[in-house]
Amino acid sequence: MAEILAGSKLSDWRPLEAENTLYLELTQGRVVIELAPGFAPQHVANVKALAREHYFDGLAILRCQDNYVTQWGDPNAEKAELKRKVLRAKPTLPPEFDRALDAKLPFTRMPDGDVYAPEVGFSGGFPVARDPRSGTMWLVHCYGMVGAGRDAAADSGGGTELYVVIGHAPRHLDRNVTLLGRVVQGMEMLSALPRGTAPLGFYEKPDQRVPIKSMRVAADVPATERSSLDVLRTDTPLFQDLIEARRNRREEWFHAQAGKIELCNVPIPVRRPAATQSGR
Amino acid sequence: MAEILAGSKLSDWRPLEAENTLYLELTQGRVVIELAPGFAPQHVANVKALAREHYFDGLAILRCQDNYVTQWGDPNAEKAELKRKVLRAKPTLPPEFDRALDAKLPFTRMPDGDVYAPEVGFSGGFPVARDPRSGTMWLVHCYGMVGAGRDAAADSGGGTELYVVIGHAPRHLDRNVTLLGRVVQGMEMLSALPRGTAPLGFYEKPDQRVPIKSMRVAADVPATERSSLDVLRTDTPLFQDLIEARRNRREEWFHAQAGKIELCNVPIPVRRPAATQSGR
Repeated sequence: MAEILAGSKLSDWRPLEAENTLYLELTQGRVVIELAPGFAPQHVANVKALAREHYFDGLAILRCQDNYVTQWGDPNAEKAELKRKVLRAKPTLPPEFDRALDAKLPFTRMPDGDVYAPEVGFSGGFPVARDPRSGTMWLVHCYGMVGAGRDAAADSGGGTELYVVIGHAPRHLDRNVTLLGRVVQGMEMLSALPRGTAPLGFYEKPDQRVPIKSMRVAADVPATERSSLDVLRTDTPLFQDLIEARRNRREEWFHAQAGKIELCNVPIPVRRPAATQSGR
Repeated sequence: MAEILAGSKLSDWRPLEAENTLYLELTQGRVVIELAPGFAPQHVANVKALAREHYFDGLAILRCQDNYVTQWGDPNAEKAELKRKVLRAKPTLPPEFDRALDAKLPFTRMPDGDVYAPEVGFSGGFPVARDPRSGTMWLVHCYGMVGAGRDAAADSGGGTELYVVIGHAPRHLDRNVTLLGRVVQGMEMLSALPRGTAPLGFYEKPDQRVPIKSMRVAADVPATERSSLDVLRTDTPLFQDLIEARRNRREEWFHAQAGKIELCNVPIPVRRPAATQSGR
């Protein structure tokens, strides 16, 4: 893979758009999340509105369940008098579990199929499933994907409670929760947290929760304080080469070639922009 | 799932065998590993021999790579004069990447196929793949599986360096490393460690390593100090029911039924023995 990336051109990469990037600021550092407005336009708009009214500032990571998810939001969400008020944003939204299949959207299809969906691949940098029969497509719960937690009702989410996948892809959640983005940097700050010991991995005691300093839209952060990142495009011949190199690993260490690869085992490389790198 | 387990009989469970169980003792607590002698007899025997000569005592967790593996062994393995001596055990072994397919072994086959292997399912409590054409079967790199690290040569492993899967199943490692067991309790002590910042997730500084107090065969530990655990059998109608319940989740929360399930998304429940539980 390093060899393939070394041969990449500037056009094989795309910058993260500041307007579609979130910074989750923790004491330990910054988690960078790329939003997916093409799949969850209302949820993306709402999470940005929440960030812009500083909804998340001072809230906390409430839950870390091993091999499943880390989740953050309002510890007092169930207490009417104590809970954080939603101002201009919406407290809940209709679900965006899937969207209409658009055959014109770039789609780099995985060659080896999938256990859960008729077609899987990458679209706009995100892992995606498609079903031509139902005419729908949806984001897939791979490691690092971010979704909007909800209660039993489909329309009880909206982005005030967010979670990220920290284990083996829980694909049974696909089309059951609105996914709205993906962690592109800082994942280890969410995946290496102590696991909560209450049911579902909630932290039992308030002081076990991990405080959130703030969550901001990158565009609202002074340019000098932004995390400039380029993400490898997923609609290029180079990305196809990368998938092929992961299907059949040429490194000397490998004795058996899988000859196959599953969607959630394809990495999407991220780097500092070429301008800050030498030799490009 | 809770409903199905509530209806389980004593015969749906099996006790962990003390002779095939390892205790990895860390400052934080005990990690319990079930060994798989049916798939890696020589490696299992050698890791037990290593444990019995106290090879691992005072060594350390050296590596934690996000969404991949946590690995433990000798920090001085590459330094001839400083490295821990192997006494009666063997420093390396021929690989046990796969074994001959035995059609008489219990095999609960997954109904929805697999991206990587012709057949997958459970055998003796472990996730397994089979290839009738090559006449082989092998353990699969699901979350929590434990393997014997190696260098580039296939016969350079043997158990002095062990790793556990802490992320999305890295199935390209199947048939490239000898898997020899699975963590059945205490996984969070290996998965929630700080990620190492050197290449491959190695810890950069010695004081970042996590010390190993000891690793013991459960049979060598006084009976009163053992972690008595029952594991759900994987060759029963009840386990088939569990798989079916995970394919189509009846809980009210689920709006869409996956109708499918992948091997590494099937949990294998563990509990304290029935004798210590009420009402069974």
